[in-house]
Amino acid sequence: MADEKLTTRAQDFSAWYNELVERAQLAEHSPVRGCMVIRPNGYGIWELIQQNLDKMFKETGHENAYFPLLIPESFLKKEAAHVEGFAPELAVVTHGGGKELEEPLVIRPTSETMIYTMFAKWVQGYRDLPILMNQWANVMRWEMRTRLFLRTTEFLWQEGHTAHETEAEAEEETLKMLGVYRSFAEDFMATPVITGRKTDSERFAGALRTYCIEAMMQDNKALQAGTSHNLGQNFSKVFNLEFQGRDGSMQYAWNTSWGVSTRLIGSLIMVHSDDTGLVLPPRLAPTVAVIVPIYKTDEEKSIVLETADRLFKDLKSKGFRVKMDTRDNMSPGAKYYEWELKGVPMRIEIGPKDVANSTVVIAPRITLDTREEPKPGKKQKLFIAMDALCDAVEDIAGEIQSQLLKNATARRESNSIRGITDYEQMKEILSRDGGFVYAGWNGDPASEAKVKEETRATIRCIPDAEFRSTTAPTKCIVTGEAAKYEVIWSKAY
Amino acid sequence: MADEKLTTRAQDFSAWYNELVERAQLAEHSPVRGCMVIRPNGYGIWELIQQNLDKMFKETGHENAYFPLLIPESFLKKEAAHVEGFAPELAVVTHGGGKELEEPLVIRPTSETMIYTMFAKWVQGYRDLPILMNQWANVMRWEMRTRLFLRTTEFLWQEGHTAHETEAEAEEETLKMLGVYRSFAEDFMATPVITGRKTDSERFAGALRTYCIEAMMQDNKALQAGTSHNLGQNFSKVFNLEFQGRDGSMQYAWNTSWGVSTRLIGSLIMVHSDDTGLVLPPRLAPTVAVIVPIYKTDEEKSIVLETADRLFKDLKSKGFRVKMDTRDNMSPGAKYYEWELKGVPMRIEIGPKDVANSTVVIAPRITLDTREEPKPGKKQKLFIAMDALCDAVEDIAGEIQSQLLKNATARRESNSIRGITDYEQMKEILSRDGGFVYAGWNGDPASEAKVKEETRATIRCIPDAEFRSTTAPTKCIVTGEAAKYEVIWSKAY
Repeated sequence: MADEKLTTRAQDFSAWYNELVERAQLAEHSPVRGCMVIRPNGYGIWELIQQNLDKMFKETGHENAYFPLLIPESFLKKEAAHVEGFAPELAVVTHGGGKELEEPLVIRPTSETMIYTMFAKWVQGYRDLPILMNQWANVMRWEMRTRLFLRTTEFLWQEGHTAHETEAEAEEETLKMLGVYRSFAEDFMATPVITGRKTDSERFAGALRTYCIEAMMQDNKALQAGTSHNLGQNFSKVFNLEFQGRDGSMQYAWNTSWGVSTRLIGSLIMVHSDDTGLVLPPRLAPTVAVIVPIYKTDEEKSIVLETADRLFKDLKSKGFRVKMDTRDNMSPGAKYYEWELKGVPMRIEIGPKDVANSTVVIAPRITLDTREEPKPGKKQKLFIAMDALCDAVEDIAGEIQSQLLKNATARRESNSIRGITDYEQMKEILSRDGGFVYAGWNGDPASEAKVKEETRATIRCIPDAEFRSTTAPTKCIVTGEAAKYEVIWSKAY
Repeated sequence: MADEKLTTRAQDFSAWYNELVERAQLAEHSPVRGCMVIRPNGYGIWELIQQNLDKMFKETGHENAYFPLLIPESFLKKEAAHVEGFAPELAVVTHGGGKELEEPLVIRPTSETMIYTMFAKWVQGYRDLPILMNQWANVMRWEMRTRLFLRTTEFLWQEGHTAHETEAEAEEETLKMLGVYRSFAEDFMATPVITGRKTDSERFAGALRTYCIEAMMQDNKALQAGTSHNLGQNFSKVFNLEFQGRDGSMQYAWNTSWGVSTRLIGSLIMVHSDDTGLVLPPRLAPTVAVIVPIYKTDEEKSIVLETADRLFKDLKSKGFRVKMDTRDNMSPGAKYYEWELKGVPMRIEIGPKDVANSTVVIAPRITLDTREEPKPGKKQKLFIAMDALCDAVEDIAGEIQSQLLKNATARRESNSIRGITDYEQMKEILSRDGGFVYAGWNGDPASEAKVKEETRATIRCIPDAEFRSTTAPTKCIVTGEAAKYEVIWSKAY
């Protein structure tokens, strides 16, 4: 099993994904339907996502808090659109402490209703605003069809919740956090994303406007990687989140909420990984480099391990996330295979010759444009002087990070189709290779629904100006009527 | 309200605690019975607890993972003692996705049953051991009487779970993690703790042996601050956690589990805080120092703010958790009051004279033995040269940290009673001031139960050797029979 090759992406992308998640020991199904176990290799990625996003949230003035897991069913019912969106997916607690509860409690599918109930207690006047809060938590949505990381009944996420004095401030916050998500996707996930606005049919249940970042996977499907909602006064009105304004009048606060989840790990896998296994951007890799000592005789072993250990300690003391693989019951080749499968960005090989020459060999997990091209059929190997190792690891990590973003951007661009005006042609594209089809839309939910029914593609977003085509489409690709927006159609996870 | 004084500890310790938690905005009750909202001031303490403990767990070789919130009811029933202990406290999900579930799912009260089910899948041979895992999670135990942080239906915690090849390794792990908890309590919480073993009646449901750290609060009651369990093979046998041993035979693994929770925040409050408000050890204080600029005229304001801002940025850039309070609608006195209530370990005052002299005044939250004694009725104020501010903040933070541990240790020692042999005398002590009564016990649960019934005190632990009296008690204080152990009797949270 361990030595079997992965199904390739070309053979069956979905099987490849499932095998990779299991064999790289990222996560697996639990005995509870739809709920996953996130194993240390996967959870280590989530910890790095958390640490880095959390820092960005704090730098933009947000504080963390924690709100209850359980929400009275009646709270959810207060906002009509909200309950309509979430009611079918609820897990309901009916008994507690051996007794039937007077009112059933639902496990939070999201926490707007609880959090704005609390905000209402804390806000009296405009001086109490803004409230800028975030919570890291588990949530539950009863899903019919689940896939590890991408769609699970329970998942981990962060949900930001804010309250503002004015509509303009709420809109500014909504877009600011969308910007934070975009920066995080680009700078940490090495993933280019389109920012834009969701159509009404894809809007968050209870929001005024939903903005999103959309990424393209290697099978050309889209994945919504994060959303930021301007909730307007929809929740403040039903939860009495009122304040006395500067003019003395009572006003309803303006809310926003925004979230990303463990789904991001699924995105990371489907954007970067290959037929050999997991590929991780170094900034989110729990282990950035693994040292594999190579020796045959006992004498070689003692010389190599001594040097390897010195380099290991040196890297570790400088803050690199590095591992040393001294397992005695495995060949170096088997170790290479395992660490490639597990997505460690670079391997550092040290043998007796390297010790003699005071060099090591670094094998990056992906081919770097910045380094000498490997010989045909060979993998790139970089010869590094031992006394320059720390700098080299830092440089190579940076190059891998950039290369991954470059590769993903190139792939997205080559699978983005613009200038199509014929609906049949769009259908043909979507049924064949897929990708992001930029085309006109009349703004009518009916034409959106027609495309979804006929192609299973949806409008991923109305892209922000910088992503739009230089020549805006004039006609709706579905009806031929005047186009109201240029939108991106794609199948999606 | 904000300016009302807190009830004093002497007047009503319990009311003091509740008022402090609310007014320092640490936590409050939510609309869901027994579930709390942890506000940013409280959650910030939890984040520091997490960060520092997590580092200690990783340094001792543990990895984080995440297991499902929901557990099939049948899993819990597999270990007889375990289900007996937890059944009365369960929250039960009976409906999901609009349908009644075939088997009810319980919200995890603790995760042994789920985690060892998964371990059983991952372990084949002795080479797969040990497994050293930890999870940070929310858990739920339906409590009848709840108090913020101390006993809530939902709480946050970490639960470590390990599997080992031998009984000796499991015992070593159990005691190692107890040692980690003790170090954390002393070094970060500035709280002296007794380490010891629980009697059978206080043992974790399903454990072979439960070890604990016990702290003394300012009302002389004990608080169990952390537990570490040697689970033996109790769970591995019922969850088929077997492995092929070095001799080729199939063997059951040896498990341990260990946890601390948001209860630690309650302990921090009750060990250190005073009638003015919260007192926090600097290492767990979200804000270590707050700068309060003092001025009357606009001219003074501009001079003072410029300097204060420079000092603020300097401290911040050096990694100090520092705040600057520039609110214009509050007097310095009102600010002092607020930050003392909220437990910031030191205040840095800067006025026009200070700017002229290139000094600041630091007011530590508690009186330091290491500094000049304050004049009678006055608080300690330290005059610090601006160019030595960073070093001074670091030094003073260290002095506060040490002083708190010293004060708490002295208080515990003066309320520890040894050498008592008369049961009536013990009853009298427990009914009056309380404290830790060290006395003999015959090892019989019946005598333990009698004391509990008559005094509400329990055996907190059979203390480790270093905490025992130099002369061991020879007789059981309850029955007069030969003492099997020296134990600590105390009322507890």
